[in-house]
Amino acid sequence: MNLVAPDAFRAIDPEPPFDLHTLVRKLYPLPRSLTGDGVRETLREIGRHVRLRIHEVPSGTPVLDWRVPPEWTMRGGSIRSLDGDTIVDWAGNNLHVMGYSTPVHGTVTREDLAGHIHTLPEQPDAIPYRTAYHAQSWGFCIPDRLWATMTDDAYRVDIDSELAPGSLTYGELFIPGHGAEEVVVSVHVCHPSLANDNLSGMVVAAALAARQAAGRRNRLGLRILFLPATIGAITWLARNEDVLPRIRHGLVLTCVGDPGPFHYKNSRRGAPIDRAVGHVLRHGGHPHALLPFTPYGYDERQFCSPGYDLPFGCLMRAVHGTFPEYHTSLDDCDFVTPAALEQSYRLVADVIDLLDADRTLVRIDGRGEPQLGRRGLYRAIAGQSEAGGATQMDLLWVLNLADGRHSLLDMAEQAERPFAHIKAAADVAEQAGLLREVA
Amino acid sequence: MNLVAPDAFRAIDPEPPFDLHTLVRKLYPLPRSLTGDGVRETLREIGRHVRLRIHEVPSGTPVLDWRVPPEWTMRGGSIRSLDGDTIVDWAGNNLHVMGYSTPVHGTVTREDLAGHIHTLPEQPDAIPYRTAYHAQSWGFCIPDRLWATMTDDAYRVDIDSELAPGSLTYGELFIPGHGAEEVVVSVHVCHPSLANDNLSGMVVAAALAARQAAGRRNRLGLRILFLPATIGAITWLARNEDVLPRIRHGLVLTCVGDPGPFHYKNSRRGAPIDRAVGHVLRHGGHPHALLPFTPYGYDERQFCSPGYDLPFGCLMRAVHGTFPEYHTSLDDCDFVTPAALEQSYRLVADVIDLLDADRTLVRIDGRGEPQLGRRGLYRAIAGQSEAGGATQMDLLWVLNLADGRHSLLDMAEQAERPFAHIKAAADVAEQAGLLREVA
Amino acid sequence: MNLVAPDAFRAIDPEPPFDLHTLVRKLYPLPRSLTGDGVRETLREIGRHVRLRIHEVPSGTPVLDWRVPPEWTMRGGSIRSLDGDTIVDWAGNNLHVMGYSTPVHGTVTREDLAGHIHTLPEQPDAIPYRTAYHAQSWGFCIPDRLWATMTDDAYRVDIDSELAPGSLTYGELFIPGHGAEEVVVSVHVCHPSLANDNLSGMVVAAALAARQAAGRRNRLGLRILFLPATIGAITWLARNEDVLPRIRHGLVLTCVGDPGPFHYKNSRRGAPIDRAVGHVLRHGGHPHALLPFTPYGYDERQFCSPGYDLPFGCLMRAVHGTFPEYHTSLDDCDFVTPAALEQSYRLVADVIDLLDADRTLVRIDGRGEPQLGRRGLYRAIAGQSEAGGATQMDLLWVLNLADGRHSLLDMAEQAERPFAHIKAAADVAEQAGLLREVA
Repeated sequence: MNLVAPDAFRAIDPEPPFDLHTLVRKLYPLPRSLTGDGVRETLREIGRHVRLRIHEVPSGTPVLDWRVPPEWTMRGGSIRSLDGDTIVDWAGNNLHVMGYSTPVHGTVTREDLAGHIHTLPEQPDAIPYRTAYHAQSWGFCIPDRLWATMTDDAYRVDIDSELAPGSLTYGELFIPGHGAEEVVVSVHVCHPSLANDNLSGMVVAAALAARQAAGRRNRLGLRILFLPATIGAITWLARNEDVLPRIRHGLVLTCVGDPGPFHYKNSRRGAPIDRAVGHVLRHGGHPHALLPFTPYGYDERQFCSPGYDLPFGCLMRAVHGTFPEYHTSLDDCDFVTPAALEQSYRLVADVIDLLDADRTLVRIDGRGEPQLGRRGLYRAIAGQSEAGGATQMDLLWVLNLADGRHSLLDMAEQAERPFAHIKAAADVAEQAGLLREVA
Repeated sequence: MNLVAPDAFRAIDPEPPFDLHTLVRKLYPLPRSLTGDGVRETLREIGRHVRLRIHEVPSGTPVLDWRVPPEWTMRGGSIRSLDGDTIVDWAGNNLHVMGYSTPVHGTVTREDLAGHIHTLPEQPDAIPYRTAYHAQSWGFCIPDRLWATMTDDAYRVDIDSELAPGSLTYGELFIPGHGAEEVVVSVHVCHPSLANDNLSGMVVAAALAARQAAGRRNRLGLRILFLPATIGAITWLARNEDVLPRIRHGLVLTCVGDPGPFHYKNSRRGAPIDRAVGHVLRHGGHPHALLPFTPYGYDERQFCSPGYDLPFGCLMRAVHGTFPEYHTSLDDCDFVTPAALEQSYRLVADVIDLLDADRTLVRIDGRGEPQLGRRGLYRAIAGQSEAGGATQMDLLWVLNLADGRHSLLDMAEQAERPFAHIKAAADVAEQAGLLREVA
Repeated sequence: MNLVAPDAFRAIDPEPPFDLHTLVRKLYPLPRSLTGDGVRETLREIGRHVRLRIHEVPSGTPVLDWRVPPEWTMRGGSIRSLDGDTIVDWAGNNLHVMGYSTPVHGTVTREDLAGHIHTLPEQPDAIPYRTAYHAQSWGFCIPDRLWATMTDDAYRVDIDSELAPGSLTYGELFIPGHGAEEVVVSVHVCHPSLANDNLSGMVVAAALAARQAAGRRNRLGLRILFLPATIGAITWLARNEDVLPRIRHGLVLTCVGDPGPFHYKNSRRGAPIDRAVGHVLRHGGHPHALLPFTPYGYDERQFCSPGYDLPFGCLMRAVHGTFPEYHTSLDDCDFVTPAALEQSYRLVADVIDLLDADRTLVRIDGRGEPQLGRRGLYRAIAGQSEAGGATQMDLLWVLNLADGRHSLLDMAEQAERPFAHIKAAADVAEQAGLLREVA
């Protein structure tokens, strides 16, 4: 007798609904920034896989302590020799022009140009990623080795950009659940050709949305936010006060495409998401580290600001600022791997399923152990091997801890058992009429 | 000046009131089971040492989620060769017939017999202990080495047993205290010829009862329960709802006769008994381990079920399922030693005395230290060696922590001092009019 | 742009207001005891540096559980050979006569004298420090090596002392703060020629008072108590019930002149002073150990008695009873060093300043991060090196934790940053209108 489907809470289909790395490669060349057509094209491409709602918020709109910035339109940029040879061309790599560069056209001396050139002397072949959102200046980002060869007295520089009233663009998707509460997954979309940071997060989030939209009907709603960093999160928060009380769990996803170990940064308030992610990482056997909350990082900074203090953690593999490819042209499509992307997808799917399945049960008669034999539950489970699924021991844990004060995750953590096994045992006991859910 | 009797809280007589190992040997051959005359004879024998009340609960009586089972009467059982040679005889070892075997009389082929034979191939000389309380089947338990020699084509099998309405038998004893609250010690009595599991617990419990009955008058009542495992505890719980609110501390005793280190399994709710046992083990210098609560084990499973959540821990030496003699004929009278039994007896006596002596005192004037000199308490104690009893430091701890929020055990734990010393110092301070008990 | 003065909260002048070791040497020979002119002269000498209020409490005055003792006047004491040669003379070292010795004049046999002689056989050149406040006896304290040479049959002994109604003397000083709450620093003044125990505490406390009196105006008042041990603290407590509710933090200072590592004994109740001292020790890079509260030691025993349970810790360098110089003539002016005294002074000044500066701030709009750029705060701080002062990270911590539930010290501890940096960042944010203080 085998009542137990040990993977009952796992994804219906553990395979991602589309090829993640293919989408990374497709999105890679699009010239994203805080605003502008690069983000619009990116969201349009993602919208081929999931039904995304696109929001446009006009420049100048007050959002919390900020205003939506002017829109930056970028059409081209180059450095040429006075002979007309093109030395640096934005069309070849959109990292070459500093984000939010003002327009410039003319000839400058090498000395003047030097003040507008960004290189990485310690990584001489890499192009750095730089922005100057509020600085009203322009700049080029190039390999240090190239700059060393640029010894002419003067150069022709052109940046065909425009900073003008327009709008900030973000994408949103909401799949309702049975109840009013929801899980939010947020990814930043404002970086140009950087694959791990954060095309990886974007494609994993899109795949989660597609999976959930494909017929799954969960208890918790799932909301996915594709936001320009900082100002996008602030804009979304300012426009969604009514949604906030329904957010039960939140997760920022970033840099989840490299093959390194996972890093999970806990929420500011020590929310249940922290234990859920920790549980899945631990019982999944993933090399990982759990990091304390700090107020630096990604948009958890906004979600966890003290006036909101929302239950958001941040899942990463490589951690910002600590890997050599970070914010350079080395963070390209080869730095993220299909296997790592899929593993990250499955991990987050497991977390979402765990959060959805977690609930609190109470023994209908908790006085003594129930007679399992006459219900066919005595050693119904015990006969299985420990590895294969829930055991008699899981059932005993559930029956003992079902006092209305322990959720299934609480039980799994106290019993040091995988959530799936505890859930399976609880399902068996509930079907046998021994447990009921606490409202 | 020596106001301090360091062993004031110890047993009046640290020697057990009767020889524990002698009683183990006397009880060993009696054919115990969940029900039946073996249990009755066992309780009658224990009743020679303590005034035991015997309860008989009719088969079929509803008890919580269960019903009292039919009574199993066992008169004999054998396997004989067709030549009439007796190969296996229950009269020689009552482990030979599986508990609650249905009657069988006849000749069976070796092949059919094999389905009813239980052996331990890895311990070929040991007889396993097996039961089938609810299975309506029969079986023999024999050494694997014997089974290997049984190569005849057919054998004569006889089990002269009866499964019929009768009653479940358990023993109970209650020695009232000054107050309404009580300590409960519970032991299972349903195992046949297994000495450590649980004749050891039974004789230690009987000795504790005899000691307490012999003129000691404690604050807490002492209740000792001699119960068939699981169904006995469930039956007792179902019939004693009125007693439950008075249970301040509870202890299940099992496998306390082997000479190995102690194992104490904490209560589900983290009750004070856990700290008391831990304190006595630690300060007694006993090798020991403290184990977390788990919902598997002995009758703490019932007492700590979520609807009751009573303050029961479980004291063991060897832990069920982890020692080679467990549930085999090797768990015999040689496996338990007189010294181990007595040490266990003294340990539990110390725990009971500690629980009885633990109370909360408050300084009558807690503003500043009292002037010890004019009360004859200045260095009255300090002159003694640390080893010999309470010190000036114990007195200072008591005077400082007597704020009505620390019991004597709290003080002993915070001060990292033996309870006996803290108690002695508290007695001195109370006699000097510096402390009063908190109601 | 550098808005940050990293040492803003440090002493206006980190140098002590007078030379500490000079004052130790001046006080060293004065014959202090529980009562008498030695204490009066000591307080008069300290009064040259700070305006001290001297209290005289008549002998016999009831104070809590005690009475103020008779006053001990000591004029001279000697042991002479019958030839008239002076062998031991109190005028040479005031440790030579046991504290509170009754008068004696006459010739005693060596055998009788032996019962009144205290030596340290294991430190044969040291004079022990002994008292017999309530014993009505007399005694001499001498080097064991000297005693070994005293082989005459009889000696002439003279102790010209007087135990008579008089008063107990203590000193007090209070520098008001802006608010009603205060910090108390208490030192014992009753030991004769022992430099570390406790001239060190006395001169550090006097210097703290002089520093604070010199124009600093703090939020918290500062009260310094110069008290004879035990009975002095009890007397002060009995006479100052009205002050007690205003004591926010308290610190007993003792043995702070030797060059060893610091030892801080935590308060009984786990008061904020514990975290403040721990923080300053840790971030100051001082070798140190934090000790749990115990009811033995200095006057924290009285302040932390259960009826008061005031927030007092005790700061020491060498710990009573654990260093060879303790309570002997080896605890002299060479055992305490100018550098150690000054370091202790600065440490306590830092603690007092931290306690004074600690407060709770709340974000005026805590929804999202504020736009630092338009306030000139974006990387206003980040440009500085970590070592030089507060960083952008400190500012982010402050902005994130300013939820009205974290004091600046809470923030510093959670961020694992020096308090001074967090305070500097909070000052910047407050000046920018981002924070307000919680009442």
